[in-house]
Amino acid sequence: MLTKDIAEALSARLEGDGTIEIGRLVHPARAERPSDLAIAMSADAAAALAQTRARAVVVSAKEPVRSGVFSAVIAVEDPRMALALLTALFDAGPPHDEGVHPTAILGAGVVLGEGVSIGAYAVIGARSRIGSGTVILSQVTIGADVTIGAGGLLHSGVRVGHGCALGDRIIIHANAVIGADGFSFAPDLMSPAAFGAGVAVTRVHSLGAVAIGDDVEIGACTTIDRATLECTRIGRGTKIDDHVHIGHNVSVGEGCIICGMVGISGSVVLGDRVRLGGGVGIADHVRIGDQAIVAAGSGVATNVAPGSFVSGYPAVPHQRTMEQLIYLGRQKRLHQKVEAMISRLDALECAIKK
Amino acid sequence: MLTKDIAEALSARLEGDGTIEIGRLVHPARAERPSDLAIAMSADAAAALAQTRARAVVVSAKEPVRSGVFSAVIAVEDPRMALALLTALFDAGPPHDEGVHPTAILGAGVVLGEGVSIGAYAVIGARSRIGSGTVILSQVTIGADVTIGAGGLLHSGVRVGHGCALGDRIIIHANAVIGADGFSFAPDLMSPAAFGAGVAVTRVHSLGAVAIGDDVEIGACTTIDRATLECTRIGRGTKIDDHVHIGHNVSVGEGCIICGMVGISGSVVLGDRVRLGGGVGIADHVRIGDQAIVAAGSGVATNVAPGSFVSGYPAVPHQRTMEQLIYLGRQKRLHQKVEAMISRLDALECAIKK
Amino acid sequence: MLTKDIAEALSARLEGDGTIEIGRLVHPARAERPSDLAIAMSADAAAALAQTRARAVVVSAKEPVRSGVFSAVIAVEDPRMALALLTALFDAGPPHDEGVHPTAILGAGVVLGEGVSIGAYAVIGARSRIGSGTVILSQVTIGADVTIGAGGLLHSGVRVGHGCALGDRIIIHANAVIGADGFSFAPDLMSPAAFGAGVAVTRVHSLGAVAIGDDVEIGACTTIDRATLECTRIGRGTKIDDHVHIGHNVSVGEGCIICGMVGISGSVVLGDRVRLGGGVGIADHVRIGDQAIVAAGSGVATNVAPGSFVSGYPAVPHQRTMEQLIYLGRQKRLHQKVEAMISRLDALECAIKK
Repeated sequence: MLTKDIAEALSARLEGDGTIEIGRLVHPARAERPSDLAIAMSADAAAALAQTRARAVVVSAKEPVRSGVFSAVIAVEDPRMALALLTALFDAGPPHDEGVHPTAILGAGVVLGEGVSIGAYAVIGARSRIGSGTVILSQVTIGADVTIGAGGLLHSGVRVGHGCALGDRIIIHANAVIGADGFSFAPDLMSPAAFGAGVAVTRVHSLGAVAIGDDVEIGACTTIDRATLECTRIGRGTKIDDHVHIGHNVSVGEGCIICGMVGISGSVVLGDRVRLGGGVGIADHVRIGDQAIVAAGSGVATNVAPGSFVSGYPAVPHQRTMEQLIYLGRQKRLHQKVEAMISRLDALECAIKK
Repeated sequence: MLTKDIAEALSARLEGDGTIEIGRLVHPARAERPSDLAIAMSADAAAALAQTRARAVVVSAKEPVRSGVFSAVIAVEDPRMALALLTALFDAGPPHDEGVHPTAILGAGVVLGEGVSIGAYAVIGARSRIGSGTVILSQVTIGADVTIGAGGLLHSGVRVGHGCALGDRIIIHANAVIGADGFSFAPDLMSPAAFGAGVAVTRVHSLGAVAIGDDVEIGACTTIDRATLECTRIGRGTKIDDHVHIGHNVSVGEGCIICGMVGISGSVVLGDRVRLGGGVGIADHVRIGDQAIVAAGSGVATNVAPGSFVSGYPAVPHQRTMEQLIYLGRQKRLHQKVEAMISRLDALECAIKK
Repeated sequence: MLTKDIAEALSARLEGDGTIEIGRLVHPARAERPSDLAIAMSADAAAALAQTRARAVVVSAKEPVRSGVFSAVIAVEDPRMALALLTALFDAGPPHDEGVHPTAILGAGVVLGEGVSIGAYAVIGARSRIGSGTVILSQVTIGADVTIGAGGLLHSGVRVGHGCALGDRIIIHANAVIGADGFSFAPDLMSPAAFGAGVAVTRVHSLGAVAIGDDVEIGACTTIDRATLECTRIGRGTKIDDHVHIGHNVSVGEGCIICGMVGISGSVVLGDRVRLGGGVGIADHVRIGDQAIVAAGSGVATNVAPGSFVSGYPAVPHQRTMEQLIYLGRQKRLHQKVEAMISRLDALECAIKK
């Protein structure tokens, strides 16, 4: 790819030579070859430009470099978006063979779209359908009657249970599990009604499945459980990090961001564009409104209004959390003040009695 | 299955036609065929009955429907238990081939009970024994010298390390790991004694195994580490959700409920019928008494008495947690009160001096 | 192994018969055979010596046993270190076949050192290099262009993505994932700048890899994501428990201890010998200094100084956390004191006005 093509893809200004063939993106300190493009859009990386061997660089338009030092300078207005576009240009994805590996096992009635790749020792259940161009890496398991859209990528060790339906351009990272059974019992043992002794536990079986919209990404070792009767749902464009647990009957809206180690209990409803920080836990049946934000590490026990920003355990509006923290920090002084007042009161009472 | 058989299985009253052949359970809004049984035991689902195409319905006896609207009405006293029984009746389990798949690899001396199924690319170590009727799905790994009881179900990607012993009717969901090594070092690095600089870390190896009782269920991506010398133990009937970590040397009693993302450190002892909410963490060597309950998100640093209900970080009796939360909410007002009192004191002292 | 050899390996005093052939280590209560060595270095286990059938025992030098009761007594100064050395002596590791299993699939140009073992259905990508004596168990996936050092052990279901580099004597437990893509988007959606409606999410691709030093151990179901351009780094001798998540661009120093269920966000920097308790969460870009300790369950939002000990959410110096907890416990009394003072003030004001 030529420097001028890269600048055009970024809608960025190019100064210098537009015909340098770029082979890879590197930190300025790692540049070795004329085909290296040094990425110096952060303050850290920009400082490293002083000693780089790179000839072609990408910098922030806010921190321009001196003319003439480099053969080609691409200056971008929005460094983070530029990073997204640049890395997409150079991402060849995980190396894999084309076509269906001879050791892959396809059940009866499996239907593969054009250009589907299936890796070694993958197992695809009967009647499952995989859309064109989707890449299934080695050792993946797809259950029976599964539908996967076009242009997807499933990494090694992913398990998709029978009956689940996944949209187009899905990315699922290694060892994630879609469609394990929900954790559901009668009586509902975390409810006060079941706190008595000798309660027998009867399993509620999971007859439903999981339905995942287009452009969803799911992290490594993440689990999304199937519903009791219908579908656990993940809306279009939602991005889910590693080690996330999404319980049975949950409905996640579109465009949500769910960071690592979030735990979402059964029957929770998330609106659209909800953002959950890392390690958030959400109690069952809670509803979180559109565009709400839950700060990392919070525990949500009650419904969250659309557009609100909550934090803490239990989660309350973030401003109140901050206020509580400030007062917590002043506790010692408050106790001292109260003790001082008691002394003054004692003295006053003494004076008055005289 | 006929409507009258279902009513009988639920010990429920049937009104109308007992001879309708039922093929599946559905939410009232999804009913399409005469063989659909609409499950309308919740307020939500009951509301959907107004527009359902279902002819046969299950409702709560507390919210009866008008006679004559449906061909068959099954009215249950305990909706949640009815859901458990109903879903069990219709759960065919994950589709799989009978018998041992030709690509499954069995080590020397493996003993299989009657009707055992082993899926594609599963690997069973030498001398392991699997009880009758147990289903091992594709790509499972069983180490050497493992014992698994009868009637179990191990989903794809489950790993059971050498020497572990599992009871009857075990269910283990995809990608769970039984029998990884414990996380144990000398000196014990989280102890104050080891806080000095330059401490060398020496591994304590895990020579023990994991022993799991009958009727235990283990969630996807859950890990149970092997003991140092003996066995990490999970008691009969205990149910464990996804992403749970149970450390080395832990002993979990019978009939416990362990929700998602719980972390149990080494050498913890849980009594019987203990219930841990989602995301709970328990420090090493802590003992939790029979029938104790730990609220979701709590961090347990000290022993918990039998039958108690604790919450918070560090966990204390739940009533105290609630009290602390109430006072936390009143901090601002308390500060204001104190400031007001100081003004009044100033005024009083001034008045007295005159 | 003879009792005298064991005593020598432990640098411990042996009393009695040095020629007993020991076959295994057991808790005193489990000793059955003359070749069993009873481990009785804890108070619990020492109590069990009263009824043991063991002839050879290891005890703490601080709690010596009576002479003449056992055939051989090994008395150690440091029980925990002795446990580490003893368990290492008797750990044969997971049983596995030598050599490359005929079902293992090796890509073009794979280079194996002497004595490498590769299990059934493992898949090794093109041009990857595995050092001498390393054991890869069944169903492991190694991507293309991966380097793994000598003397390592990778358990079943481990996934190592393309381009990653691992040192010597690495241990990785089952179903861990090294080199999944980072969770990174433009705009950075957890930042305030991105809180507005209608923000489009663009993926930042992960072109980097993961680099892991010598003697690192990684727990079951742990995930370490690849960097955007360079390498996510784990320093030599660092030990990582199960269910840990280490985000993209993170740098972990040498000799760190990271307990179970820790979540480390993108671009965090950990110094050397840092210790993180279970369930700790660390916000992105935070720096934790050498030998700092973070207590279990803490949420770290800001940098942590070298050598400090922090706890709580958000994490502050542990002493301050303890102080806050003490004051929290006194809140009720404080409120009562303030109410009592108000009454006294009322009375005083009343008295003065008269």
